[in-house]
Amino acid sequence: MVKHADPQTDRSQEEEPEGNEDIFSVTPWEVEGHVDYDKLIDKFGTEAISPSILDSFRSITGEIHPLLSLEYFYSHRDLDWILEKYRNGERFYLYTGRGPSGMVHMGHIMPWLFSKYLQEKFNSKLIFQLTDDEKFLFNQDLSKERIDYFTHENILDIIATGFDPKKTKILVDSKHIQYLYPIATEIARHITLSTAKAVFGFSNSSNIGMIGFPPIQASTCFLPSVIEKEPTPVLIPAAIDQDPYWRVTRDVATKLGYYKPAQIHSKFVPGLGISGKMSSSKPDTALFTTDSPEIIDKKILSAFTGGQATVELQRKLGGNPSVCPVFWYLRYFFDTEGESDERFLKCKIGNLLCGECKADLTNGAKPFIANFQKRREKAEDSIKEFMYDNDSSSI
Amino acid sequence: MVKHADPQTDRSQEEEPEGNEDIFSVTPWEVEGHVDYDKLIDKFGTEAISPSILDSFRSITGEIHPLLSLEYFYSHRDLDWILEKYRNGERFYLYTGRGPSGMVHMGHIMPWLFSKYLQEKFNSKLIFQLTDDEKFLFNQDLSKERIDYFTHENILDIIATGFDPKKTKILVDSKHIQYLYPIATEIARHITLSTAKAVFGFSNSSNIGMIGFPPIQASTCFLPSVIEKEPTPVLIPAAIDQDPYWRVTRDVATKLGYYKPAQIHSKFVPGLGISGKMSSSKPDTALFTTDSPEIIDKKILSAFTGGQATVELQRKLGGNPSVCPVFWYLRYFFDTEGESDERFLKCKIGNLLCGECKADLTNGAKPFIANFQKRREKAEDSIKEFMYDNDSSSI
Repeated sequence: MVKHADPQTDRSQEEEPEGNEDIFSVTPWEVEGHVDYDKLIDKFGTEAISPSILDSFRSITGEIHPLLSLEYFYSHRDLDWILEKYRNGERFYLYTGRGPSGMVHMGHIMPWLFSKYLQEKFNSKLIFQLTDDEKFLFNQDLSKERIDYFTHENILDIIATGFDPKKTKILVDSKHIQYLYPIATEIARHITLSTAKAVFGFSNSSNIGMIGFPPIQASTCFLPSVIEKEPTPVLIPAAIDQDPYWRVTRDVATKLGYYKPAQIHSKFVPGLGISGKMSSSKPDTALFTTDSPEIIDKKILSAFTGGQATVELQRKLGGNPSVCPVFWYLRYFFDTEGESDERFLKCKIGNLLCGECKADLTNGAKPFIANFQKRREKAEDSIKEFMYDNDSSSI
Repeated sequence: MVKHADPQTDRSQEEEPEGNEDIFSVTPWEVEGHVDYDKLIDKFGTEAISPSILDSFRSITGEIHPLLSLEYFYSHRDLDWILEKYRNGERFYLYTGRGPSGMVHMGHIMPWLFSKYLQEKFNSKLIFQLTDDEKFLFNQDLSKERIDYFTHENILDIIATGFDPKKTKILVDSKHIQYLYPIATEIARHITLSTAKAVFGFSNSSNIGMIGFPPIQASTCFLPSVIEKEPTPVLIPAAIDQDPYWRVTRDVATKLGYYKPAQIHSKFVPGLGISGKMSSSKPDTALFTTDSPEIIDKKILSAFTGGQATVELQRKLGGNPSVCPVFWYLRYFFDTEGESDERFLKCKIGNLLCGECKADLTNGAKPFIANFQKRREKAEDSIKEFMYDNDSSSI
C-alpha cells in the first residue's frame, strides 16, 4: 500500500504560518485545528495498530478490512488482548454510540459500517448508545424537543446501517437511564473532580450536569457484564475524540470487578470544505443520509479540493490529494485501495482533473445514499425490535 | 408559651471557651458543633416563621400544631405564599425524604409525623424520596447491599408513620431514576460548578457523582408539575440542613417554568448523648423504631441530662433543661406544652430529679415505639401500594 499523509494534516502546499499545524484540540465535544493523528496517540496514550494486530485480524477473519489497511482505524487500547480473548473462545460485545445533535452524514456511518462488519465477523452482540442527555447538557441552545427529533431520525440511520436486529440493542440515555444509573454511580464514586477537570477540561463555568455525565457514557462499558452476569469483554469502535471517556472508565474497571473496555479508534472523515471534520454544524460540507441526488450533486460540485486554480496549472504542477476531501471520500468509501493509490499518483503528476474526481464521487455517493435511504424508509417498523429492554435473553 | 433556649445551643452552664458556640457547621451531609438556629436563618437566608404565618395556619386548620408553637419547625421559605395559594383553592404537594444510610430513629420520624399531619389537614399528595444514590456517593464505606437493606427497612418505617396510601408515593432514586433524570438534566444545565462549590462546599477531591447529585434531589420538587401537567406548588417539610438543595432549586425554578418550592425547616432532635443531633452513627444515643423495651430502658437510663452531679446539688442549684435531651424529647414527643413548661421551671428550681424525667420519657417512648412497631410489622404488605409508578392517576 502506498502511504499517504493524513487528511487534514498535510498542509504543505498551503501558505500557513510555520508551526501552526501543531495547534489542534480534540475533546469529546469539539475538534479544532488540523489534527495530527500521530501526536494524538502520544497525547492520549493509546497505541498504533501494529502489523501483528493486522495479522491477528487476518488469521481470524481471513482478510484485513480496508478501513484497517487504509488506517482509518489506526489506534487502539487492548485490541490485541480482546482478539486473544476471542481466539480463546471468549466472545466480546461491541459498544458504539452517537450524540444526537443533528442529522447523520457519511462521516458518522463509516465507523458504524465497520462496527457492522465486526459484528458479522466476530458474531458480536452490539449496544448502540444515543447520548441525548449529553447533547442537552453540553448545548445550552438545543431544546429537548429538537434532540428528541434528532434521536428518532438518528435511530432510523442506525437501523438502516444494517446491524443484525437479533444481536443489536439501541439504548437512549434518557429512556434507559434506569439500566445505566446504578452502574454510573459505582463509577462516579471513583472519579474525583480533579481527575475530571484534567481529562475533560471542565472549569468553574461548566454546569454540574456536564461534570456528572462521563459516568453515564462509561456505564455502558460495563452493561454487558451486568447482562451476562459475568465479566464480559467489550470492544468500542469509535472516533478517537471519545477516548477520554474510556480512559477514566479503564481506570476504575478493575476496582469494580470488570474488564477494561478495549477500543479501536478511527480518524475523522474530512468535510467537503476547506478543513475540519465533516460536521452537522456545517451542513453544506457534509453529505447527509437524507440528501437528495440534486443536493449531493451540488455539494460535491462546490467541494474544496487539492487541485490547482486552473486546468493549466493542474496539468503543469499537479494537485495535492492529501488535503483533498474528495480524494479521501473516494478512498474511504468507493475506490479500491489500488484505484485510490493510482488516483493519488495521477493527481500528483497533473494527470487528473478535479472535475473527474468529483464525477467519480457523485457516481459513488448518489447510489450509496439512495440505497441507504431505501433501508431507512423501512427502519421505522423495526425500532421496537431494536430498542433495549433489559431482557438479557433478547440480545 | 414560655420560651426556652434551643436544644444544643444554650450551653451557659458548661465551661467552654468563650465564643466556641459560634463554631458550627451545617451541610446536607454533616452537622457539627452547637447549632445556632437563629444564625442559621441568616446564614442560609431563610425566614423565621412569623406570628402571621401561625395565624394563617390557625385560620385554615383551626389550630397550631405543637411542633410549630414549640418552634421545632421554625424557619421557612415561601410558606406564606403556599398558604395563600391554598386559601385561593390551589392544592400543593408535600415532598420530603430520607437518606437510607442507617436505621430510623425518633429524630427522623418527627418531621414525618408533621408531614402526615399536613397531609391530613391540607389534603395533600405526598412524595417521599429515598436518596439511596446520595448515600452511596457520599459514603465510600457503604456498600450498595447495605444501602439496599436500609432502604427496605426505612420504607417500613415510612409506611408505619401512617401516611395515606392513596395520597402518598415512595420513590427510591436508583429504582425510579427514569422519572427524575429528565428533570434533573434540565436543572443541572443551569447550575455551574462554581455555584455548586459555593453552596455545597465541593472541592477537587469530591467525586463527580457527588457534584452531579444535587439536581436529582432537586428534580423531585418539579415532579408534581410533571405529574399534574401544570405548575404545581410544593411544600417541603424537612430539617434545615437540607436547605442548600432547595436554594439552588429555587434559583432555577422560574427559568424552567416551575414554581419555586416552598419549605418549612425543622431543627434537629438532640441525641441522648452530650451534644449533637440524634444520629444513626451514634446508636447508643438514638432511640430506634426497632429498639426493644429493654434497650429503650437502657439507653434512657444512661442518657446525658442537664441535671447536677448529685441529688443534693440538683435540689440546691437546679438543673439546665435547655441542654437536656431528655427534656427536649419529652417536650417534642410526649408532654403537652403546659406540662413541658412546668417541667422546665421545676427542673430550674431543683424541684425535679433526672430520674423522674427519665422515667417519664421511658413511659412515653416504650408504648410509642411498641405501637410503631406493630404498624411496622404490617408495613411489608403495603410496600407495593406505596411505591411510585409514574401513573399520575395513582397519586
